[in-house]
Amino acid sequence: MPHISNKGKLMPESPIRKLVPYADLAQEKGKKIYYLNIGQPDIKTPEVALNAIKNNNISVLSYSHSAGFETYRKKLATYYQNISPSITHNDIIVTTGGSEALLFAMGTIADAGDEIIIPEPFYANYNGFAIASGVQVVPVISTIENNFGLPPVSEFEKLITPKTKAILICNPGNPTGYLYSKEEIDQLAAIVKRHNLFLIADEVYREFAYDGLVHHSILSVEGIEENAIVIDSVSKRYSMCGARIGCLVSKNKEVMSTAMKFAQARLSPPTFAQIASEAALETPQSYFDDVISEYKDRRDLLVSELRKIPNVKVANPGGAFYCIAELPVADADVFAQWLLEEFQFENETVMIAPAGGFYSTPGAGKNQVRIAYVLKKEDLKKAVHILKTALEQYNS
Amino acid sequence: MPHISNKGKLMPESPIRKLVPYADLAQEKGKKIYYLNIGQPDIKTPEVALNAIKNNNISVLSYSHSAGFETYRKKLATYYQNISPSITHNDIIVTTGGSEALLFAMGTIADAGDEIIIPEPFYANYNGFAIASGVQVVPVISTIENNFGLPPVSEFEKLITPKTKAILICNPGNPTGYLYSKEEIDQLAAIVKRHNLFLIADEVYREFAYDGLVHHSILSVEGIEENAIVIDSVSKRYSMCGARIGCLVSKNKEVMSTAMKFAQARLSPPTFAQIASEAALETPQSYFDDVISEYKDRRDLLVSELRKIPNVKVANPGGAFYCIAELPVADADVFAQWLLEEFQFENETVMIAPAGGFYSTPGAGKNQVRIAYVLKKEDLKKAVHILKTALEQYNS
Ligand SMILES: Cc1ncc(COP(=O)(O)O)c(C=O)c1O
Ligand SMILES: Cc1ncc(COP(=O)(O)O)c(C=O)c1O
Repeated sequence: MPHISNKGKLMPESPIRKLVPYADLAQEKGKKIYYLNIGQPDIKTPEVALNAIKNNNISVLSYSHSAGFETYRKKLATYYQNISPSITHNDIIVTTGGSEALLFAMGTIADAGDEIIIPEPFYANYNGFAIASGVQVVPVISTIENNFGLPPVSEFEKLITPKTKAILICNPGNPTGYLYSKEEIDQLAAIVKRHNLFLIADEVYREFAYDGLVHHSILSVEGIEENAIVIDSVSKRYSMCGARIGCLVSKNKEVMSTAMKFAQARLSPPTFAQIASEAALETPQSYFDDVISEYKDRRDLLVSELRKIPNVKVANPGGAFYCIAELPVADADVFAQWLLEEFQFENETVMIAPAGGFYSTPGAGKNQVRIAYVLKKEDLKKAVHILKTALEQYNS
Repeated sequence: MPHISNKGKLMPESPIRKLVPYADLAQEKGKKIYYLNIGQPDIKTPEVALNAIKNNNISVLSYSHSAGFETYRKKLATYYQNISPSITHNDIIVTTGGSEALLFAMGTIADAGDEIIIPEPFYANYNGFAIASGVQVVPVISTIENNFGLPPVSEFEKLITPKTKAILICNPGNPTGYLYSKEEIDQLAAIVKRHNLFLIADEVYREFAYDGLVHHSILSVEGIEENAIVIDSVSKRYSMCGARIGCLVSKNKEVMSTAMKFAQARLSPPTFAQIASEAALETPQSYFDDVISEYKDRRDLLVSELRKIPNVKVANPGGAFYCIAELPVADADVFAQWLLEEFQFENETVMIAPAGGFYSTPGAGKNQVRIAYVLKKEDLKKAVHILKTALEQYNS
């Protein structure tokens, strides 16, 4: 039998993958599960996007331009001009999700063996894209004590080698929910300028900022136009995860012409989804106001309820819809499995994502879990109550 | 300014990319262009697929399973059971086009520096996916004199090294239109068994076989279940290029579980497009009968008209909708550009794809072009007449 690649062996499984069979089994037994483990919002997709699909009049479903519809890119440019007035459609390549934008970005800037520094905990699939691209992830640790804020500049500088090609941040963060301040973004800008690195910012949760906090895009920082590459997506913004539309944004012309070659190789992003995404740009502001206020209420509820549980530590996330909680357990993997396999409270339980999978440093985050607040408030409240009861039982 | 990757520099431009500005200019000047250079069919997408999209009742456009809808995979399994009765939905991962299936296949079986042998001329984007994956393409030449049939087994064996991981074929071929015989497929099967290699077959043009010729899928060859990986796509089959749905099919469980990790990293294939693709499986046979008979008539017309031009050599393609023609010119790149820039016949011209881009051996195919018969017969006839007139003028 021929052998698969080492790369294939190294590709990580999703952090929750191992738990899925236990969840399936629990469900088969009639146990109700509150899913706190996923990044799939329950929010309705804007009508304007769904209607555009229903009313399409395509008769030959053909490839689009490899960079995406020009009409869509021009409207997207208008959107980004709110962040940086000089953005044009030439600075945008439409991709198949933010996922593909990440893959294009890594391929464009790094060769096999090159390094990318990423504050951990980080979105677990960065590992997958890095391995697929042959790139080495170098983690720099951020801590729950510091609310997962930016690690000190000196920590980054210790890690920079001749092989370092970029710093990759997620802002606001999955899994931390942390929203970087202007000062932090400026610090990052200074590092990448000084060391001639790229700064890749995954801003797919840009719209989700609470408490009047402002999101600071790296596109708005003057002087790093040649360094900055933004990853974006319609998945979370419009609750259109299944569309598979994102984009890569950069003013660096060499980056864009190189990324275009990756884009041409795969021909085009999906056509129906582009129609929906283009229409989604007409979503009324009231939609976002409602969504943000809903998420903020959920976060407030989640954090305050979690803080009521003895020995649970939780950072207060300023954005996105995740938080990391430290639990009074030795191994969150074991605990998460136990929740599904053994525990029940009135025949209900919760599924949580053990945070170990979001760290690259072995053993880090072992007693942490990621909780997504993608459930209605009443369900969220119940779910935290179940978690509390479970922790009492687990530790007695 | 930070530097892009070597990989990014090596990524090839599409073979026709260089010509696009000349085509745009010609069009601006009011010249009509017959596009013989593209693989975008003009055939209508089946109604049943388009209607499924119009009638969808999604309210939250969520991620699908990373392997694709289970309902779709089960129906797809039924389709493949016509080729190999034991195929189940577990042997299928739905991908974002055949393009992504190729990328997953390469990542699953090869590491940086590993080699894949491909008969050339071949689909140019194999180069792009190979470079993105760090894989080395090793070409084995097939010739127009031999109608682009399989090179002798000895030629493959000469190229096999410890780094060789797979042989990749396209059947029927883009750009050659060549349909491999049962004997040729059996020869390939014997080589991969003997040398413990994977055999990847890109069968996206499977349905397009003419003259009563039968397509022989590698899935139907007994004894290479662990070696065989099929790349497939709805793009050409249903004229649904813009859907971006394909799949990877293999009975090798290790291949499938590894490819699944690549699939999980990018979350899911596009949802709307899966709805359309699932519905497309209900396309009536009459649709295919009409399409195949239309393509066959076009091919007959194209080949016979091309053969009337002095000093033009053309292989008779048994499948797909391309053919390679050898022209009485020194450099097809220069000629193709001249056609757009300088030539006109009654204010019309043709765009052809210089074949050099489909070869990996430098200088090979320099006097060849790929012609796609994706135009109506009357247009195809006009286009060949224009080409004939152009060649006369070019060579006088
Ligand atoms: C931080 C982050 N980046 C990128 C993605 C990829 O999203 P998509 O490919 O759906 O745009 C996700 C999805 O959860 C994410 O959380
Ligand atoms: C031989 C071959 N393989 C794969 C593809 C990729 O097609 P898609 O990604 O649209 O399925 C094409 C497209 O032209 C092709 O010609």
